[in-house]
Amino acid sequence: MTRSWWGWGNVEDAVGGAELDALLGRVRAVMPGELTDHEPPSVASLGLPDPRTTPPASLADLCSADPADRAAHAHGKAFRDVVRNLEGDLRHVPDLVARPRDERDVTDLLDWCTREGIAVVPFGGGSSVVGGVEARCEDHPAVVTVDLGRLNRVLEIDTTSRAARIQAGVYGPHLEDQLRPHGLTLRHFPQSFEFSTLGGWLATRAGGHYATLCTHIDDLLESMRVVTPVGISESRRLPGSGAGPSPDRLFLGSEGTLGIITEAWMRLRERPRQRAGTSVRFGDYASAVAATRAVAQSGLNPANCRLLDATEVLINAGVSVGGGLLVLAFESADHPVRSSLERAVELCRDHGGEPADADTTGGSDGDARGGPAAETWRSSFLRMPYQRDALVRHSVIAETFETACTWDGFGALHHAVTEAARRAMAEVAGAGVIACRFTHVYPDGPAPYFSVYAPGRWGSLVSQWDHIKAAVSEAIVANGGTITHHHAVGRDHRPWYDRQRPAPFAAALTAAKSALDPAGVLNPGVLLP
Amino acid sequence: MTRSWWGWGNVEDAVGGAELDALLGRVRAVMPGELTDHEPPSVASLGLPDPRTTPPASLADLCSADPADRAAHAHGKAFRDVVRNLEGDLRHVPDLVARPRDERDVTDLLDWCTREGIAVVPFGGGSSVVGGVEARCEDHPAVVTVDLGRLNRVLEIDTTSRAARIQAGVYGPHLEDQLRPHGLTLRHFPQSFEFSTLGGWLATRAGGHYATLCTHIDDLLESMRVVTPVGISESRRLPGSGAGPSPDRLFLGSEGTLGIITEAWMRLRERPRQRAGTSVRFGDYASAVAATRAVAQSGLNPANCRLLDATEVLINAGVSVGGGLLVLAFESADHPVRSSLERAVELCRDHGGEPADADTTGGSDGDARGGPAAETWRSSFLRMPYQRDALVRHSVIAETFETACTWDGFGALHHAVTEAARRAMAEVAGAGVIACRFTHVYPDGPAPYFSVYAPGRWGSLVSQWDHIKAAVSEAIVANGGTITHHHAVGRDHRPWYDRQRPAPFAAALTAAKSALDPAGVLNPGVLLP
Repeated sequence: MTRSWWGWGNVEDAVGGAELDALLGRVRAVMPGELTDHEPPSVASLGLPDPRTTPPASLADLCSADPADRAAHAHGKAFRDVVRNLEGDLRHVPDLVARPRDERDVTDLLDWCTREGIAVVPFGGGSSVVGGVEARCEDHPAVVTVDLGRLNRVLEIDTTSRAARIQAGVYGPHLEDQLRPHGLTLRHFPQSFEFSTLGGWLATRAGGHYATLCTHIDDLLESMRVVTPVGISESRRLPGSGAGPSPDRLFLGSEGTLGIITEAWMRLRERPRQRAGTSVRFGDYASAVAATRAVAQSGLNPANCRLLDATEVLINAGVSVGGGLLVLAFESADHPVRSSLERAVELCRDHGGEPADADTTGGSDGDARGGPAAETWRSSFLRMPYQRDALVRHSVIAETFETACTWDGFGALHHAVTEAARRAMAEVAGAGVIACRFTHVYPDGPAPYFSVYAPGRWGSLVSQWDHIKAAVSEAIVANGGTITHHHAVGRDHRPWYDRQRPAPFAAALTAAKSALDPAGVLNPGVLLP
Repeated sequence: MTRSWWGWGNVEDAVGGAELDALLGRVRAVMPGELTDHEPPSVASLGLPDPRTTPPASLADLCSADPADRAAHAHGKAFRDVVRNLEGDLRHVPDLVARPRDERDVTDLLDWCTREGIAVVPFGGGSSVVGGVEARCEDHPAVVTVDLGRLNRVLEIDTTSRAARIQAGVYGPHLEDQLRPHGLTLRHFPQSFEFSTLGGWLATRAGGHYATLCTHIDDLLESMRVVTPVGISESRRLPGSGAGPSPDRLFLGSEGTLGIITEAWMRLRERPRQRAGTSVRFGDYASAVAATRAVAQSGLNPANCRLLDATEVLINAGVSVGGGLLVLAFESADHPVRSSLERAVELCRDHGGEPADADTTGGSDGDARGGPAAETWRSSFLRMPYQRDALVRHSVIAETFETACTWDGFGALHHAVTEAARRAMAEVAGAGVIACRFTHVYPDGPAPYFSVYAPGRWGSLVSQWDHIKAAVSEAIVANGGTITHHHAVGRDHRPWYDRQRPAPFAAALTAAKSALDPAGVLNPGVLLP
């Protein structure tokens, strides 16, 4: 397999043939526009500038100045990243890509960059959709992207406590491969699972498999080790502690601005053996939301509790439902979960839901499925980033954004966001479609995830999208949401994050950053000015 | 009811009569010593020094220089606090006790103290057992203790999201009284419930009712408002967020060093209607621990999962068990929990446990009980602080300490701690008893809670205890534990906290403190040098 330098995942997995024809057919059915394919440029044609720095001899072996390497590390994988790659706009390419072999190398690289004032961009899988790995560091003489990919081993497993010490650069599948022989799993499956790393998940507070309880990677962390310019920070392996503010919680979400995570003890679990799932159709969206809230507040804690609105179901499962489809699944390594599913379905029926037959077979990855429509949707889910790339090549604006809010505030937020998106799409693209699903749910509120599709114009896609994004972000922040539930802040969410973040906390974080990174070389522009 | 200035809770609830006779009888049976009663001194006899400061006229109405008030705010409620009160040793008494009526008053008090360099000790219920409210602030010209008790109202309830906006100074019972008419409960019941406040729980990361999942108050917090010397920090009401490091997590556990918490949105739940509980006896402790671990890792998530060792059961329930008693309880507002209890009992039987009959009646506070021995233990639990006071008056060393560690490390930690305690007790008291229970359990480890009883000598009790405490703290920290799972750091845990805390995090926290409290007036000596 060959990783794509300009788009998602592997070159060999790109959308083509019948899948492409079907996808474009679906697009033609709902929106106008020309659908000409735009091929990615070759790396050679990009004319990247020469690196502005040379590593010291002791670090030379770790550093690559190869244009393909630098191009592949210039952007994340957001819509606007892929567009700019296709357009050949790589103005913020890193000067070097460094690949440390061990923690000592990380320390040496940080020392060198700190000494020279060179900006350091920590890089896991590079799946950021918020400009988190893009070296917009004009104030620095050079930029070195530190790719942690070689730190990819599970170092130690404590089967008694069900935890493992894991290097931060390991990708999702390779991590699970190393845990599987022990009957254990981290069970953290973000959509980016195949192309993102443990360290990236921790640095960005990634959202994962579980719709309830352990929604973020935060909850799976036992302790971590972080290389900072002033030394290594290592927290204790503790199942719980009340000793002062949590050290780990400062580094979780620090997005490479305070240090580089090199390893972590993670909480594992046995692979599930009991599963039950179904999907429930609703005639109207308000009832579907009320039912989802009832399940979220029931204490049943389903592993999956994903409410898809009618547009989402139509686009990605090809099925028409009146008000929405709630995909429900329970799983356990210890006890039957059928009664939990039955109670959840009962709560849904109380709100007018009609369940499909329950499915207790489980899928190939051990996840309980939820009937045919849910299954179709799930297949789409894993193909979505590839399909997005195909759409971008054909000038379709296709992107997502997400938030979380209280149940009390959801109605107003949903209305404001969808209206803002429709208005903005009308302004810049004439029309467009917005769909909503819940990725995670809490007793006090959902995490809504929106997808937008609009006909774009080649050459204007970034500005079109930025206009839409600004409008929906404004609606989110003005209606009590968070600018991100699990996509992180990076550089692109900064304007809204700055408004959402309490000013005294900003002062505290700035001070903490100065203490840990006095030269200000770590991921400049992320989280902080 | 009259609050005791020198000991726990209400004067009227002190141990006396038959309860005292029985208590002293039990003590005589297990340890030598004279058991003379030492009456608390009168406040008038303490000869407190005059206040070293006078508030500005605008704040005079909020401030009390009454000796009884100052004496009652001089110490927390640890063994060493009660001893020193009984001995009349109040060398760190605050100069004034201020009682703000609202947040504006809090700001004004902080402004005045910041201007004058006067130390500020935030005070909730004053139940600290770690020197958290004791004004050891020799570097400051004066000390003002800010008692938040007047900020005691539930301001707003969002029944849809099940959350409430609550003032930080409210005591546990008054808080629940205000929630009860709405069918809601916070369900945070630390042993100090009656004499501690929401703000205190948040500032110290208090542990509560639930043995699993929501073990700390941290997990029940939706957002908070904190007055700092540089402004008010207010986080958004969010069910979840991945926008940078969590602002709330910096203030949770800050123990009054970064600001004064004035209100918080807290996550509530419906009062439980379904309950099932029992207790399970074990013939040996290792099997009891293994069974408890199996339950903790099962995903059943019991509300109560408290393993009492044989000594604990004997002392506080008067029952003899070979290896331990596991108290188990499940509760729900939504669905039956009997099958969860049955599965947990099955796991215990796999490890040789013998269950008592299950109890599904529930107690007066809606908590599921666990059979007669568990019920007796529970009654003792609520009387323990009062009994401790009675013991102190009779020169008995009676104190607790707690930690958390991984399951893998528990055996070694337990051995080291009990040996260290026995050795230290032998050294300073000739003999002594140590008991252990788990207050909370996690998939990756338990939170062991130790009680020690030893015959003391009047006049030497503090130094005797400090010797024992140093020995067990050393054993905890040397064996991978945390110096506190939920009692906080305060001033007394500092030496071990300093060793446990990663140095770069200490630097970050120090910098954050300087940014928020540039004059260094907030609770000096707590958490930081």
